[in-house]
This record gives sequence, C-alpha cells and structure tokens, in this order.
Amino acid sequence: MSTARTAPESGPTQSALPLAGLRVLELGHYIAGPFATRLLADMGAEVVKVEPPEGDPIRGWGSKAQGHPVWFSIHGRNKLSVTLDLKNPRDKARLVKLAARADALVENFRPGYLERIGLGPEVLQAENPRLVIARVSGYGQDGPYRDKPAFGAIGEAMGGLRHLTANPGQTELPPPRCGISISDDLAGMYAAMAVVSACWGRDRAGQEGRGRIIDINLVDSVMSLMEGMLPEYGLTGKIRQPAGAAIPTAAPTNTYPCADGKWLCVAGNSDLIFRRLMGAIGRPELAADPRMADNAGRCANAAELDAAIAAWTRTLPAKDAQDALEAVDVPCSRLYDIRDIAEDPHFRARDSVMTVQDPLIGPVLHPAAPFRFDGVAPRDMVRWTGPAAGAHNARVFGEWLGEEAEA
Amino acid sequence: MSTARTAPESGPTQSALPLAGLRVLELGHYIAGPFATRLLADMGAEVVKVEPPEGDPIRGWGSKAQGHPVWFSIHGRNKLSVTLDLKNPRDKARLVKLAARADALVENFRPGYLERIGLGPEVLQAENPRLVIARVSGYGQDGPYRDKPAFGAIGEAMGGLRHLTANPGQTELPPPRCGISISDDLAGMYAAMAVVSACWGRDRAGQEGRGRIIDINLVDSVMSLMEGMLPEYGLTGKIRQPAGAAIPTAAPTNTYPCADGKWLCVAGNSDLIFRRLMGAIGRPELAADPRMADNAGRCANAAELDAAIAAWTRTLPAKDAQDALEAVDVPCSRLYDIRDIAEDPHFRARDSVMTVQDPLIGPVLHPAAPFRFDGVAPRDMVRWTGPAAGAHNARVFGEWLGEEAEA
Repeated sequence: MSTARTAPESGPTQSALPLAGLRVLELGHYIAGPFATRLLADMGAEVVKVEPPEGDPIRGWGSKAQGHPVWFSIHGRNKLSVTLDLKNPRDKARLVKLAARADALVENFRPGYLERIGLGPEVLQAENPRLVIARVSGYGQDGPYRDKPAFGAIGEAMGGLRHLTANPGQTELPPPRCGISISDDLAGMYAAMAVVSACWGRDRAGQEGRGRIIDINLVDSVMSLMEGMLPEYGLTGKIRQPAGAAIPTAAPTNTYPCADGKWLCVAGNSDLIFRRLMGAIGRPELAADPRMADNAGRCANAAELDAAIAAWTRTLPAKDAQDALEAVDVPCSRLYDIRDIAEDPHFRARDSVMTVQDPLIGPVLHPAAPFRFDGVAPRDMVRWTGPAAGAHNARVFGEWLGEEAEA
Repeated sequence: MSTARTAPESGPTQSALPLAGLRVLELGHYIAGPFATRLLADMGAEVVKVEPPEGDPIRGWGSKAQGHPVWFSIHGRNKLSVTLDLKNPRDKARLVKLAARADALVENFRPGYLERIGLGPEVLQAENPRLVIARVSGYGQDGPYRDKPAFGAIGEAMGGLRHLTANPGQTELPPPRCGISISDDLAGMYAAMAVVSACWGRDRAGQEGRGRIIDINLVDSVMSLMEGMLPEYGLTGKIRQPAGAAIPTAAPTNTYPCADGKWLCVAGNSDLIFRRLMGAIGRPELAADPRMADNAGRCANAAELDAAIAAWTRTLPAKDAQDALEAVDVPCSRLYDIRDIAEDPHFRARDSVMTVQDPLIGPVLHPAAPFRFDGVAPRDMVRWTGPAAGAHNARVFGEWLGEEAEA
C-alpha cells in the first residue's frame, strides 16, 4: 500500500517523472479538462486545479465514503487544489498571477466565457507570452455550432461512434452508450498531448518561444477515430453500418452467451485457431467441413458457426469457457465487469490495480497511470490522492504568489 | 483543396507546427503504433515509418481506389515510408543507425520480439542513449498475460468497456463492439502523449537527459477510463452495470427511434429543458405533472417519459425531429453516420472534414487533426497523404544515413 501523503513534497520520486518541473493550471470542471490535467499530473507535472469556492461540481457525482466522492480520489490525484471566485476582482488578479507563473493552462468552459469575465487568452498571455492555453469545448471555438450546449452523449452521437455501436437491423432497442464519458475522455487525452507538444516546441525555440492557443473539442475527438470511413464514403458512397459484436469480414469472431449470464468474446477466425476452437467445443467435423476451410467460407456460414459456439458456451460459466479455450490457445476474454478487473491476477501482478491510502476516505482501489516509464514503479506515479477543494490554497498562494498566510 | 505534395519539403508550414524538428521512427503495424505516430506527425514531427518490404499489413484492409487502400491515405499521412527487412543484417544495421539519429521510436510488436531479433532497447540505446522508446502491446511488457495474443476486441472486453456497452437485462443479443478499434486508438493516444512527455523531460535535462522506455498496453488503456468504478467496488462492492442508451440518474435522457429508422439522442433532463421538450412534443401536461417536477421524480417515471418522447420521434425523420427540438434549445443529436459527418455544415465550416488531393488516389475526404494550434490552418496540418511503402527510401537513407543513391 502506498504511504499516505496529504501534503505533497518534491523529492526523488517526483523528479524521476518525465514532466517534473512543468507547471499547469487547470480551470476545469467535470471530465474533459480535469482528465487532461490528471494525465499530466500522473506524469509528474505540478498541476494546480482552480475550483470555485463550492468545488468542482463533479465532486457531487457518484458514490461517497466518509462524505467524500470516491471518483475524485482518482480524478483529482496528483493535483493541488485551490479555490478562487472568478467573479471576485482579487481572485481574478490572483488567477492572472498564477497564469504568469505557469507553463500551461487547460480550461473547458463554454467558448467565450473566459473572454466575458475578462480572462481571455490575450489577458493571460499579456502577462506571460509563453503560456500554452488549451481550450476544450463541445464543438470547438468557432463554427456554426460553437454555442450549442455540449454533452458527452451528443459528442458520441455527432462524432459517429453511437451509430456504429449497435446490433445490425435491431430496431427495438436503441444503440447503447459506451457506459463511460468516452467523448470527454478522448478530448482530454488530445488536450494533454497537445499541451505537452506545444511546451516541447516552445522550449526548443528558447526565449523567443511563445505559448500556443490550442482548440480541442468533443465531436472532432470522436470523429478522429472513424478510420477510413470518410475517404471510403467520398470515393464510393459506402456508409459503414454497425455489425454488433461480430466483424463482417472475419469469422468466427463474436461474443457468446454463457451459463452464468455473462458473455465471452472469442477471436477464432484464423485457420489454425478455428480448428482448435472447433475441437474445444466438440465439433471437429466443422473444422473438417470444406465449406469452412477458409475465412471467406466461414464468413458465408457465420450464423451456423456462431450457433455451434454459443451452444457450447451456454453450458459453462464464462470463466470456465474462457479457461477451456485458452488452454488450446484460442484468443478470448469474458466481458470483464469491475469486479473481474479488481480481482484479475494480471492487473494485480502489474499494479495496474492497486490499493492506495487516501487520507480522506481510507484505503481505495486506483488504476495505475496508463503509461509506464522505466525506473518508475506504478505506485510512485500515484503521489497523492484527490485533495479536498482548496486544500492547497496556503501553499500555492504562498509558493507561487508570495502571499503571506492569512491569520 | 490542399495542393498535392508527394515529396514533402521542410518549409514555413512545417516549422509552424509544435513538433517540427522532432524525429520519430515507427516500427509499427496495424493500428496502435501507427496511430500514435500519425498524431505526432500531424503535429509536425518527422516520422519515418519502417515497413517490411511487402508493406504494413494494414495496407490490405478495407476499400481500395486505384489499387491503393483508402484508409492509409489518412493512417499514413504526414509520414515518410521506408522499407527494411529486419531479418537482413544490412537492414538491421540501417535500423540501428536510423535510431541513432532519432528522438524517439514507437514499436508495437509482441513483447520480446525486438529482443529476439537483436534490436532490443539496450541495443538501440547503446548507440543513442537519448532515444525514447515506446512499446505498445496487448497486455504490457511483463505480467502473467504478457505473451497472450493481443486483439483489439479483447482489450475492450478485459478493460471493462464491452460489459458496459449494452442494454440492461437484454440477453438475446450480445453487447455490440464500438465498431472501431477503440482499444488500439486509446493505446496509440497514450503512447503519443508519453513519447512527447519523455522528450520534454529529456530535453529539459540537457545533455545528461536519457531516453525513457515506455510501456503502454491495450487493456490498461481501456481500463484507465473506468471512472470511479474501482474505488466504488472496493469500498461498497457495487458493480457498475450497463444502462443502454439511458443514464439511470438523469431523466429524460435517452435515444429515440425516428420515422426514417434513424435514432435521436436527447438530453432533456434539466428542469427548464424538460419543460421545453414536453412542449415541443405536444405533451405540456407532462411538464405540469407534479410527479415530473424534479429529476428524482422523472427518473422514477422515466419509462413513461421515454414512451411519450418516442411516440413523437417516431412521426418524424431524425433530422426533422432534431431541428424541431433545437429550435427550442433542447440538446440533441441524431446518431450521425459517415454521410451525416461528411455533409455536416459545422464540420465543413471548420475544415474538420476536408477534401485533400492524394497523388495516389485523387481527391479524398480527410478528417482534420483533432487538435488545432493558433496560426495553423487545419489544411496545413495535412502536409501530405499516406505514401506508398518505401516511397522515401532514397531520401531517408540519404539524409539520415548519408548513403549514396543506388544506381
């Protein structure tokens, strides 16, 4: 278990991280902006999260323990929290001063909001021309939809993801969400990489390096993952349709029901794997069937193969079916729920899932940072857990702004 | 339309990009590694994609035009392509020399492969201790599942995403895939940000800066998006279940069937928006119903509200229903397919979708880079389209290695 650290200290652990020494201000709320800065913080950046006096509204989301939101233990980890009232002139001046001492600022207000309260990029860069400013919004900082309200679900819908996340021909039930805030996550990830890239280019340019203003949005972030569909549509008119859990050009590869109500995802479509799979389910005659000799034939008869595999998976709990197929080297995985993740021996062996001591709520499970650097243990990348709102006011206003602690 | 450029030149456009001057080698194939380097290339890095003589096998995927794969127009854009046979000693020596001149290398072979062919990190860093090496794999470079075959679908399954992408209680149809290679994409995005971060930290350290070795994998990348589910499970035992297209804690917000067989995603759950929504669908009495006065009451009666909204959406094509709701400021979006994306006036106004001249296949639609930097037009970030395999052998072997062109 990691040691508890309420007041983070710079030390050997921190300086071993690649972004040690990078100072980032977060004017973020909910998911996209704060996720960007959490990734930077995991890599060692000194992130100051600026919250309104009542705290980021995401602190009100989801389960609580000891009165504290459990998600925020992760979502706010490795960050310093300060509270500012951006309608108060004194606090506004503090924000400008903080920005003057930062490498980068990440914000995800609606387009135009910062300008309206007198904290637009030109104000911030007047004090600090080297400040990199990343702006995360629903639709971007310009264009006809700029002022539409941004919702994660709508980012998924307009970006093309929800259309594809569906069972073909199924009209009674709507295509499901991913169940997570995927469009916010993607935008946050793009913001993190663009911020660091802008800092690399700026610092490479030396003293004359200026801070970039970066525009990231939810719908473009989702749409960026549409593979070759745009050129394909433009050249041939083809509109990619959803394929459920199958892949139309490979068979058998699908997701199959098990005896315990769980599902097993199986990728059995190469010639050799297909033979082993048919043996494992007790249908060797299908492996020998000339209709099934190659992928094209198997695709043409995918329904028959899927029915045969499902008839077998229905007789076993998902874990047992997975073990049986893995024993003969057929790639597969049951659909993990969060308990499967928490208990998985691989995730545990690598500390991808680890127990961390949170001073506010006690021992909690955290995911490791999704990137590892040689010589840095995953546990050392969780330097501290999400702090209470304003926990670092005295420290940051003192160290960054030179203010005396108030009596 | 962007001008055609087969042989990229350094120039003002390139140097305006934040990663101009960063040299990156890609030993990648399929999606995750190549996506990481494409993002770096979009930001101006000089990326050399090293392919086997027969080309990256992803060139065989999907639609072709003039004999060339259309996805690769995007997937390989802004990269230089060289072909090397890594089993040939001369080409192996060339790779080591290229790595000696690079800032970073991204690879996505199976763990251990590079070591087996004598090109492990210790060999590459012996020539260039500053080389950042990002390794992308299915399960990571160590741990009990290290050697399992990696498939994108299995990354989604084990990372927890597929379990959540489902309609609740629905057991006849399997939870669908996202329809894109989401786990590869996420891993590629994490690899891109970790590479730039390692370069920033290395260059900040000056001459003594060493190259990091980075470990990224598909299952951790997906699992990193599981929000607060891990601490919640650890503290309360709660296992997050799929909720279909709805959000259990907000109503009405769901996805509704339209007259043309398309779907409309509607976020109508705030008090004010709810009233406008009920007016628009001709059910003002529901807005006045005391049972529906707050979100808690609406959640308790979500089925009734969803039925009322669906009864209205079924009477209209999705586009008309969207227009009607947007006219009264109710956030919504039909589920865009790729034609909707290609034709959308916002995407077009911002050049998020643009026609690019591909010298191999003619004019094609490309998505813009998902990040924008002030002073750089989206069109200027598509410097050239995906080249043929080996198109830049002479240039790269000449400029990077000082080889004379072969007769």
